[in-house]
Parts: sequence; structure tokens; C-alpha cells
Amino acid sequence: MKNQLSRRDFLKKSAVLGAGAYPAMLALSLLPGAPAHAFALQAGHGQGKHVVVLGGGLAGMTAAYELRKLGYRCTILEARERSGGRCWSVRGGSSTAETQNPRHAAGFDKGLYFNAGPSRIPHHHQLTMHYCKELGVPLEVYNNVNEGSYYFAEGKGPLSNKKVRAREVHNDMRGYMNELLAKAVSQHQVDTALTPEDAAKVLEYLRAEGGLDIDKAYKASARRGYAEGPGAGNHAGKVGDPHRLADIVSSGLLDPDFYNVAEYTYELQMTMFQAVGGMDRIAGALERRVADCLKLGAEVTNIQNQPEGVKITYKDAQGPHELAADLCICTVPLPVLSNLSHNFSSDVSRAIDAVPYIQTGKIGLQFKRRFWEEDEQIFGGITHTNNDLTQIFYPSYDYLSQKGILIGYYNFNEKAQRVGELTYAQREQLALQKGQLIHPQYPKEFEQSFSVSWQKQPYSLGGWALYSPEERQTHYQALLKPDGHVYFAGEHTTYLTAWMAGAFESARSVVAAVHSRLSEQRVSYPTVKS
Amino acid sequence: MKNQLSRRDFLKKSAVLGAGAYPAMLALSLLPGAPAHAFALQAGHGQGKHVVVLGGGLAGMTAAYELRKLGYRCTILEARERSGGRCWSVRGGSSTAETQNPRHAAGFDKGLYFNAGPSRIPHHHQLTMHYCKELGVPLEVYNNVNEGSYYFAEGKGPLSNKKVRAREVHNDMRGYMNELLAKAVSQHQVDTALTPEDAAKVLEYLRAEGGLDIDKAYKASARRGYAEGPGAGNHAGKVGDPHRLADIVSSGLLDPDFYNVAEYTYELQMTMFQAVGGMDRIAGALERRVADCLKLGAEVTNIQNQPEGVKITYKDAQGPHELAADLCICTVPLPVLSNLSHNFSSDVSRAIDAVPYIQTGKIGLQFKRRFWEEDEQIFGGITHTNNDLTQIFYPSYDYLSQKGILIGYYNFNEKAQRVGELTYAQREQLALQKGQLIHPQYPKEFEQSFSVSWQKQPYSLGGWALYSPEERQTHYQALLKPDGHVYFAGEHTTYLTAWMAGAFESARSVVAAVHSRLSEQRVSYPTVKS
Repeated sequence: MKNQLSRRDFLKKSAVLGAGAYPAMLALSLLPGAPAHAFALQAGHGQGKHVVVLGGGLAGMTAAYELRKLGYRCTILEARERSGGRCWSVRGGSSTAETQNPRHAAGFDKGLYFNAGPSRIPHHHQLTMHYCKELGVPLEVYNNVNEGSYYFAEGKGPLSNKKVRAREVHNDMRGYMNELLAKAVSQHQVDTALTPEDAAKVLEYLRAEGGLDIDKAYKASARRGYAEGPGAGNHAGKVGDPHRLADIVSSGLLDPDFYNVAEYTYELQMTMFQAVGGMDRIAGALERRVADCLKLGAEVTNIQNQPEGVKITYKDAQGPHELAADLCICTVPLPVLSNLSHNFSSDVSRAIDAVPYIQTGKIGLQFKRRFWEEDEQIFGGITHTNNDLTQIFYPSYDYLSQKGILIGYYNFNEKAQRVGELTYAQREQLALQKGQLIHPQYPKEFEQSFSVSWQKQPYSLGGWALYSPEERQTHYQALLKPDGHVYFAGEHTTYLTAWMAGAFESARSVVAAVHSRLSEQRVSYPTVKS
Repeated sequence: MKNQLSRRDFLKKSAVLGAGAYPAMLALSLLPGAPAHAFALQAGHGQGKHVVVLGGGLAGMTAAYELRKLGYRCTILEARERSGGRCWSVRGGSSTAETQNPRHAAGFDKGLYFNAGPSRIPHHHQLTMHYCKELGVPLEVYNNVNEGSYYFAEGKGPLSNKKVRAREVHNDMRGYMNELLAKAVSQHQVDTALTPEDAAKVLEYLRAEGGLDIDKAYKASARRGYAEGPGAGNHAGKVGDPHRLADIVSSGLLDPDFYNVAEYTYELQMTMFQAVGGMDRIAGALERRVADCLKLGAEVTNIQNQPEGVKITYKDAQGPHELAADLCICTVPLPVLSNLSHNFSSDVSRAIDAVPYIQTGKIGLQFKRRFWEEDEQIFGGITHTNNDLTQIFYPSYDYLSQKGILIGYYNFNEKAQRVGELTYAQREQLALQKGQLIHPQYPKEFEQSFSVSWQKQPYSLGGWALYSPEERQTHYQALLKPDGHVYFAGEHTTYLTAWMAGAFESARSVVAAVHSRLSEQRVSYPTVKS
């Protein structure tokens, strides 16, 4: 109640200051106690102004959704026959024609899908969580951490072609490393710069952390799993022998492109989420809010700044069209934008042409039986391998059901380029051949596949923007300012590249900028809390 | 097809060997290719034989469920007015009268619950997973690992009374320890017993594992979270300073009863599950299979071995009754059994009286707003603290909804004993007072509570059996053999004490033993795979 009253008092005061003061201060972080995701600009200022939004992905639809709350008229032009852009869940009936490849369609069974684009939401991406809540998209845990998944080194070292559970590598390494350090600390070979009392506590910690015995040695540990599990009666369980450190090293399981320190990165730490039923439920919920201003199958060909606004040329099934607007928000991915006609400044034009995008691809493999769960007790999570598959993602939905779709590879850079050059059939063959080294059930249980190479998706032409620190100071800066009447948005205008949060943050940032300009108020973009 | 044919061949051969051979070999692990959880004994052998089961918890109901598949007649006597025993989800309307405390009822809102007993299923507990599948109980991820939850040291050291995110402690410790070891390895102060080439790889691993810089030093890392998160435009994000190692140590965050190495233990590794809607859905699904042979409110008072069977005396609302059966399966927890009349052998009697049970308790706190999610981005997982609360569990269901129930404490041993001695109101007061040190939102958002002290629950009188290695050789052994016509089952007859898997494994083990005896076949308990 106290907060509500002071808010009302604040509103009254703002009214005295004039109609302009409140919306400016209301911009996100200026109201006392407003959470970081709150976004409230006063409506009614946009009357009569028309904003054209290029791209009906998350950034474009969110920008239009928020601008319309403020009273602006919007038109979204989306080249594809569907909304969502890279936020795409492939189901039965989904189809795409890659550049240089024919159109292909997925025939997956009803209820089965895989997220070809973003598949994970970090719990601290507050804007993504906020929109899921506001739009009524239910979330479920995306199980990114699974100690039961595998490390699989194809053709390398003593552990070559063996299914090594993540828990074996993680706990063996914890054991060996903490043993080395605990012995070094106790023999004063390293200086912890701690009091003797605190050093003793660190020693106890190392013993606990490593699962060491009383002599600070790592031997066997149930943490790495059992050779024979504990059960009833005299089944006490038998712990297996650890892998030799030298074997783990020479099998390449610690190699930087293989060992999964990724789990420690801020964005991949549990808790992670996914939208129930497919990540495109988020795009679908947004689309329902902007459907009446969204033109699908409308491919932009020319963006022209004019003295008093912007002129967009696009084509659809009926032919070419021109559209005039007061301002434009352009969310088109840079490699696509680079092929369009425009009259942008040279700085902006150079940035559009220069910023590299990652090459990345996934394949969904439908199996008639969830053998990874039934036979191998793998429920969600990721298997890591050193071959072109890079990773296998197990589904985090419909556990214990009959059929399922694995993501048979999720690769990047050179590996993704190599695989992207293959035909759809060849990619399937690769995924099955390499995959069955790990899961021999593949041939018997496989039903069908659908692969996506993002650098070959016509209206994406890449996974996400890859900036070097130097480019953040040059090309990136050019894209942060409006070029005449055109503003840029999308993950490539944020430090959250690759994440849906980048789309949302950029949309809110550009809406604040557009509203500042059109309502002639100073509206600031909020500080993002960690 | 190949497997099916050989199975048929096998059946034919068995038939030649006589009706008895097949069920014996069919017992779990003897059929080629049978998964560890398969349990198929030939039905029809139990005609006319009556088995009385004492206790309608998971062990007792599972035993009856499986015995009835084999054709046995069963009667389950359950003292409580509900089935499930310790597998109990507290909802609005749930009630209990603790020893020395009056009956109290939960008034939680519809749809809200907390699991007063088991709340987690390890993915490798194959029998638990098997029964959930067979009984049609949907599972969802129990989010046991959450890097966004807190370590909270009350009144101790420089980090005293500060909310320290798990990710801060985990990554600071990884950083400092790997820095120490990396420097020691590179300066040859420790001997890795590796080739120089492999040692160089271990060094690279240590740098990656610790998040160290090029000089092997741990400075700041985004892994531990941001002081200001990355966003759109020039919001690059600001990484916070690490905690000083000495501060972490002297604040007690590494103390054995506090720092969460529990996450490494085999049973607590992700993936973990819970039953959708409450863990008692498992008990409920079993109850539906055995409802016609389950007597609720039937309190056993006397168990007597007879020359030709067993005689059970029990009382219910109508008064005392006697029941005769060929065999008895007794799943009554030992502290409860210890108070009943029986004519067991002295070894068994001593075991029943001697085996200690853990003291443990939980409190469910209903809040009108999920402030831990909305304000603090905590979705599931556990906050650890050094005070009597020990842990706070955040719910792993209905994320982003309005209300929620936290488990305000989950403690053991002395702490649980202390808290268990309090009245219900005093426990609530403790949970709120200590909890609001961590979550100041408590007083404003709290609605109601319900607490359970397991050592004071009449038909449980403890959490689970606690065996020392010595007791495994003495008392435990006495309980593994039948005493006359009485077999013992329940988590206390397994190496899976505390887990629902213990109930299931013991039920299957005892069913195999009972069936061996009554059908005069040798039936073996299966080897449990890890």
C-alpha cells in the first residue's frame, strides 16, 4: 500500500510538471522500486505517427508490440511466410529452402519438435522471462546440466570410442587436481597467503571437493557412478575404478573444444528454461499481439531515407509495393541487409557489409523409441564429442514417452561450414554414422530427420553476429545510432548476441529511442541488473 | 525380431524343462537383453496363498501390487487414514497429529503443495523411474542445481549476513584453487607424473577450469555474475570483484556442514525428477492398483509367527481384529515396530530395537507472491545457511505463477531435533525470523505454514534408517532373512536408505523371495546396474 500511495503522489506531481515529464521519468529505471524489467511509457503520444518495422522476428514484433501500446501505428514487413525469424521450432510441416538446396519439409510426428534456433533461456535473462510471463508462455526447465551424458572421443587415446559419462570425467578430474593441490598445500609447496587456521580449512575443503580419502588421495568415488549400483539386501554397490589421468589427457577429453567448461559460463548455468511446446511459442504469442500489422511474405528490397521520413520498397506475391513511414526500425540480419538497396551513410553501410556472422547448424533426428532414456538413463543434457557432430542434445520434454527427437549435431564454425555444404541426405547420413558410434541403437530406431544450416537460411544467412573487441568500437558503434530515419535493432545491436534476450533488449532500447524522438521527450534505456 | 524369436525359442525350451524352470529364470536378469528394471515372474502360482502386508507405504503397496500380478491374495494393513507413508505431499486439507502435539491441518491454496517426505528422484534410480512409467505418473525436472541460489552465513566473518550467490562462491573457489595449482604445476612445484606434453594440456585445462587469465591469475570473471548485466547498445556489462579467499574461508562458507559438495554426490547429480503435482502421485497411482486389498486406519498391534503361517492382530475404528495369512511382509519402520508385540527371534528383535533413525523436518511456507523469482531470479534449487534452517528449497513447479510454497527449512540431526521440540507456531516463527534475514520480503508476503517433524510422526517416528558400517554386518543382516513366516521390507532393508528406490527395490526383492518360497522355485533378485 505504501508504494502504491507514493506512486499515486508521484503521478500527481508529474501532472503538475506537465504532460511531458512523467513518461520520461517512467522510462524503466526512474520510478522508485521498479524492477529492471518494468517498461512503462505513457501511451497516447504516438497518435498519427507511423513506424515501419523490417523483420518479424522477436526484435521486430516486440518493438511493434511496445510501440502500439504507446499509440503508434506500425507495419511489420516479414519476408518469410512465418514470423519468429531464428526463433523457429521445426515440426511436422515445417519447411525451408536453403540457398543452393531445394525446399524440404519436416515430417515429424505430431507433438514432436526441435528448436532449430534458440533453445535455452538463462534464468537471469529478465526480459525474456518477463515477456514469457506477460505473453502467457509457460516455461519448463531446460536441463542443460546432466552428469549422465557422455564425453566421446572418436579415435583418440586409450578412452577412444568409449562412452565416458560426464560424471566420470568431472569427478576424476576433481579428484586428481584436488589431490595434487591438497598435498602441495599440506607440504607447504604452495603459499595460500592464509593464516594456518584458514589454510587448514582450505585443506578440508579440498578433501571434500575432490572426494579424497583421509590421506588426501583420490581413489574410487561413488560420485563417478557405480560398476554395480546399490540395491536391496546385500547389494551394497560396487564403485568402479577411476580413469587414469594420463588416459583422460591423451584421449583429448580436456581439449578446449571438447571439455565442457561451457557449463560454468554465466549464460549456461542452471536454472535454464525453454518454452513448453517449442521456443516458437514465444514468437507465436507475440504474433497474436501484432497480427493485424504484420505482413508475411513481404520481402524488403530497398530502404530509402527521405527528407521527411522513410520509403520502403518490398515485394510480395502480388508484386512490388512502396510504403512510407515516419520512422523505420530495421531488424534485418546484417548479411541479408547487405544485399538490399539502401542509401545509408558510409559508416553504416561498411558495418552492414563487414560484421561477420557465425556458421552453425543443427539436425533433428526422430527415433521411434527414446533409447537414450530407456537403455542409458540419459534425460536431457548434452553429449560432447570431438567429431563433426560436436554435441548431441537430448530433449528436455516428454520424458518417459515413446518417441523423441534428438538434436543429432549442433556445431559451429568450420565444422558447421563443412556440414552445411552437404546435401540434406548427406547430413542425415553423417549424423547417423557418427551418432551410432555413441548410440548403437540409431539404425534400428531411426525414423526421419530435418537439418538446418543457418548460414544457408535465406533471410538469416548466419547464426548470430560475431564481434571482435575492436569491432565493438567501430562497426558496432555505427549501428547504435539512427541513420536518418532508420534505427537498427536485433541481437546484433547488443552485448547479448545469440540470445533471445538480445532481441528483446534491443527492441526496448529502440522503442525508447523512437519514443524520445517522436514524442520529443527524453526517454532513457534502463540499466540492466545482473 | 531376432530377440523376439530367441525369446520364443527360450520359452519353448523352458516348457520342456517343466513349468517351474521358466519363472525362476525369468526373474529379472536371467532373460537375455532384459533391462535391469524388467520384473516378470510367471503368474498363476499364487492361487490360494494369502500374504498380509504390514504398511501401506511405497514398499508395502508395491509388494502387494507385484504379488497380485502373480496371483497371490493380499491384504495391506495401514495404520494411517491415507496411504503412502513418508511419500507425503502436504496440501490444503492434509493433517497430522504429532506425538506430544495436537492435530493440525494445512490450509494451503488449491494447487499448492510441498513434499514433506521424498522430493527428488535421481535419474539413475531405474526402479523408481520404471514404476512412474508403468503407473502413468508424469515426471518433471526437479531443479536441484541452481547457481543463482544463495550461501548465507549468519553472523560469521566478513560475508556475514550477505546473500552470496552460489555462482560467486563456486567460481571464486574454482578460480583461486586452479590459480594455485596452475602456478605450482608450471613452476614444477608439484609432480603430475605426466609427460611434458600432457602436463601442458593439464595446465590449459586448469586455466579453463578456473577461468584464469593468460598469467594463470584469477581476477574477475563473468561466471560469478555481473554487477551490471550486458544489454543493448553500449551496455557491455560490468563484472563484479571476486570475494577474497580469506573472506570466504573465515565466513565459514567452506565449512563441511554448509558448502554444497552434496551436489557432487551420485544421488544428487542432475538430472533429477519429481512427480508432476506432488510426489504422492506415485503413492496414489499405486493405491489405485491395490485399493481393494488396502485397509486404511488399521493399526497393527501384534505379529505372531505360528507353526503354519502368521497371525496379525490389528485395531481399527470398529475395534480389534485378527487376521491369518500364509506369509507376512512387514514394512513397518523399525522405531514403530519396536513398540509392537511380536514373537520374533532375539536377533531380529535386537535389530528392531537398535537401528537408529535420522531426525529430520521440513516446513512449508505459503507466500502470496513468488518474490524469489520476481525480485531475485531464483527458480528452484536450494539456499544453504549455517543456522537452524540449514536449507531453503525453492519450488520446481509452476514457475512464474502468482503464489508459491517454499520449504523454509529442511534440517537434520541436532538441528532437526531442536526444531522438532518446538510447537508448530514456534517453528513457523523460527522459519520466518531466520528466513527474513535472507529474504526480507517474508513478512509482507507470508500467508501460512505447515511443519512436519518426522521423528514425531506417529507411524514413522524418524526420517530413515541410519546404519553404521558395523551395523550393516550385524543388525542389518538379521533383517534380510525371514523370521519364520515374516519377511522385512522397506528402505531400511536396502543400501538405498532414504530414497523411494529403497522401497521399490526392497519390495521387488521380497516378492522374489516370497514367490521362491510359495511357488517352490528358485527366484533370484536381480543385479542392479549403475
